[in-house]
Amino acid sequence: METQQVVSYLDRHEADAIGRLMEWLRIPSVSTDPAYSADVRRAAEWGAQQLKAAGFDVEIMPTGTADEPGHPVILASTPGDPAYAGPHVLFYGHYDVQPAEPLELWDNPPYEPVIRPAEGEIGERIVARGACDDKGQVATFFEAMRAWKEISGKAAGGVKMTVLIEGEEESGSANLEKFVDEQKDRLGACDVCVISDTGMLGRGKPAITYGVRGLAYTEITLHGPNQDLHSGLWGGRAPNPVNELVKVLAQLWDQDRKITIPGFYDDVQPVTDEERRAWQRLGIDSVAALRSIGLGPDADVGEAGFNATEREWARPSCDINGIYGGYTGEGAKTVIASHATA
Amino acid sequence: METQQVVSYLDRHEADAIGRLMEWLRIPSVSTDPAYSADVRRAAEWGAQQLKAAGFDVEIMPTGTADEPGHPVILASTPGDPAYAGPHVLFYGHYDVQPAEPLELWDNPPYEPVIRPAEGEIGERIVARGACDDKGQVATFFEAMRAWKEISGKAAGGVKMTVLIEGEEESGSANLEKFVDEQKDRLGACDVCVISDTGMLGRGKPAITYGVRGLAYTEITLHGPNQDLHSGLWGGRAPNPVNELVKVLAQLWDQDRKITIPGFYDDVQPVTDEERRAWQRLGIDSVAALRSIGLGPDADVGEAGFNATEREWARPSCDINGIYGGYTGEGAKTVIASHATA
Repeated sequence: METQQVVSYLDRHEADAIGRLMEWLRIPSVSTDPAYSADVRRAAEWGAQQLKAAGFDVEIMPTGTADEPGHPVILASTPGDPAYAGPHVLFYGHYDVQPAEPLELWDNPPYEPVIRPAEGEIGERIVARGACDDKGQVATFFEAMRAWKEISGKAAGGVKMTVLIEGEEESGSANLEKFVDEQKDRLGACDVCVISDTGMLGRGKPAITYGVRGLAYTEITLHGPNQDLHSGLWGGRAPNPVNELVKVLAQLWDQDRKITIPGFYDDVQPVTDEERRAWQRLGIDSVAALRSIGLGPDADVGEAGFNATEREWARPSCDINGIYGGYTGEGAKTVIASHATA
Repeated sequence: METQQVVSYLDRHEADAIGRLMEWLRIPSVSTDPAYSADVRRAAEWGAQQLKAAGFDVEIMPTGTADEPGHPVILASTPGDPAYAGPHVLFYGHYDVQPAEPLELWDNPPYEPVIRPAEGEIGERIVARGACDDKGQVATFFEAMRAWKEISGKAAGGVKMTVLIEGEEESGSANLEKFVDEQKDRLGACDVCVISDTGMLGRGKPAITYGVRGLAYTEITLHGPNQDLHSGLWGGRAPNPVNELVKVLAQLWDQDRKITIPGFYDDVQPVTDEERRAWQRLGIDSVAALRSIGLGPDADVGEAGFNATEREWARPSCDINGIYGGYTGEGAKTVIASHATA
């Protein structure tokens, strides 16, 4: 089987692969700090080189505008085998890293990667800025592509693929949306997207993340009187926006902690029995997770009918991320606020 | 009738009475600013003099401590006629005033009282700092006491009275509670308390305020996780204190906007039919009141079964004076806060 040949190839060349990753980790591609712009560019070129070596057509494309240029995107593709009938795969990753400060908390300089024993666990770890977010993951993809090319003689083993590796993930992907929009023709043709910028369940427990939660965020402000009022004079007489806002917000959930917004669950994929069983077998300790944030087992509450793992992985949630209204300083002030926001 | 003689006396001596009030208004008894301490003292002495002239036993008593002296209290009393069988009346007022700044908003210097036509209304007004809070009101009491003494020959016309006029009302009555506590024997013997530091319904519409709302203020903080969490990772899994707080707070009122706290209404005096009718006759325009705070007639909502006047004057209310939790800055932050406060 070709796959076994590829795995075998990777095993044989592991030291080379680690050496290549080390090279990449030595480039301080900090996207948020303009002082590192040249390094960011260098990291993009390094990545582009790997994809070229694996047989891809590769471009390093600018983002942003002439006035406000962004960091470049590595955009690569391979048309796939003429006989290939599977999905057109989009691979996404990023080659930029977070700033390494405060430096005094590092045992080794962050851009001088070292291999260390994994404390309290088997095996070793590479310690460097970006090793696990996201250069390490992207490097495994590069190595897989290299191995498939070597074994099959075809880029991506004949799979039709597009690769997008950006350089601004750690600074908010400010230019990505516009870029994706401009490249709609190329990117929109993809059927699935593979991202390895997620997590593992633990050492020796690799994970396939096949869904992440999206986000719809809104801010509402409820206006009442045109000025703050004294609640001794107006309490019970003028509408209090804070009172009314909490009444409205409290209706977001029913007794079963189901979200009551009409249509909220319409497009939610149900959790299948197979998934439930598979997740159950992972033996995730939800009580330990709660303990890690200072809570006891009785804090394991949420949408009725789902356990903590199911709620986190497969169920949408509705959270108030912030609320404010009225007097929020020290001491007491008997005010009816003119507005309240959540 | 003696009362008519008293009224007639007051009418005949109106100019003298106004002249005396003007004298008092000229003393800048600003309690919050130590620069005016001597003036505050002088204002107390002036008031004590009026009560002496009306036949009271008067003391000017210190408040506070040796280290942190407060402004003095005028404490006066008269034992009443031997035959007097009515209530022991406590009169309360204050002789201090708010700072007059910003001075540029005054048409006349604040401590140089002038008599002006009442704009758009009949009659005249005295314009000076303290004229309507609270020296003007207390002066009418002084004049009434003076007149009763003149007509009946007895202090307070024979009524058993205690008078407490403090000098710290405008700076929070910091020393009053302790003072009242120390004078419990004298003050606790009073049956009713007369305060004229409230309001009028309008010019030519004097009002007797026979009840004011007290205050119970509490701050609650609901704690959840021991750190702020990312709502993408923890939403629906970890309890969100803001979500939970609004759910709890929303239960403070039922569908009829009655307050649901057990026992909340236990000691509330019902509004009598007589009161309802009397208040109805006042012709208070609650729609105009709402308009003054920028709201339309449909904002006239409150506890079912009571109109706006009844709610303001006779019904307790429960208001959230402030609420905050989570991210309250600009833009979006997907945080599950570790606590929320109202």
